[in-house]
Amino acid sequence: MNNKECVFCKIARGEIPVEKIYENDNFLSFPDANPVVEGHSLVIPKKHFKTLLDLSNTLGAELLDCLKKTSVILLDKYKAEGFNVVSNNFSSAGQAVHHVHFHIIPRREKDGKILSLHDLKDSEREMWFLIMSLRGF
Amino acid sequence: MNNKECVFCKIARGEIPVEKIYENDNFLSFPDANPVVEGHSLVIPKKHFKTLLDLSNTLGAELLDCLKKTSVILLDKYKAEGFNVVSNNFSSAGQAVHHVHFHIIPRREKDGKILSLHDLKDSEREMWFLIMSLRGF
Repeated sequence: MNNKECVFCKIARGEIPVEKIYENDNFLSFPDANPVVEGHSLVIPKKHFKTLLDLSNTLGAELLDCLKKTSVILLDKYKAEGFNVVSNNFSSAGQAVHHVHFHIIPRREKDGKILSLHDLKDSEREMWFLIMSLRGF
Repeated sequence: MNNKECVFCKIARGEIPVEKIYENDNFLSFPDANPVVEGHSLVIPKKHFKTLLDLSNTLGAELLDCLKKTSVILLDKYKAEGFNVVSNNFSSAGQAVHHVHFHIIPRREKDGKILSLHDLKDSEREMWFLIMSLRGF
């Protein structure tokens, strides 16, 4: 399962060079080409699957392994204290490359304007922390 | 591994009733108590693990199973065309309940103001789609 024109398949095949952060048999991580914060990275399966729904359950152990190992490396390298994992599936959810991928976004305490957000619901606040940091506020 | 005061442990033990969407041996999904969009739901492990880093790789297959089955049910129920999966890990990343959880956020085409976002980078745009829909824009 491989897609000739897919940019992530090209990365998996080594046709587009990236600085690999971690890899196992079926997954690979590397820095996002357009990072929204320092250390913003991606985890992808080496084979072409369009969305999360196409990933076989049997790949779950290796997926978790790659997400965890990559996050630990990024936390250490960028002196971060937390991280968001985000996977957008299908165009309506903002998926730009149709090869399933997981954003790992290192976070630091107080990189969002927490004090101005007290009137939001907890679940909204979590999302605002993320987007405010991404906009550099 | 279980935490007496943790709200998600209480849900897993049945002490706080929820409308279960799907469950397998180790994971459970249910509607978010403060949904930011219609159908916003959570996937949690039944045992207490603080963050993604504490989840054993051996739980990966069941995690993927629960994420996928829950997403398919939500896509159908809410006539959605896509979904975001978001996991915030540690306080600095906006984690409010310290029992690892995955938000599943059903999405519809044009629920974000796509046309005004052409000047943003792709990776920023994906994030803006998410937050704009959450704010009801």
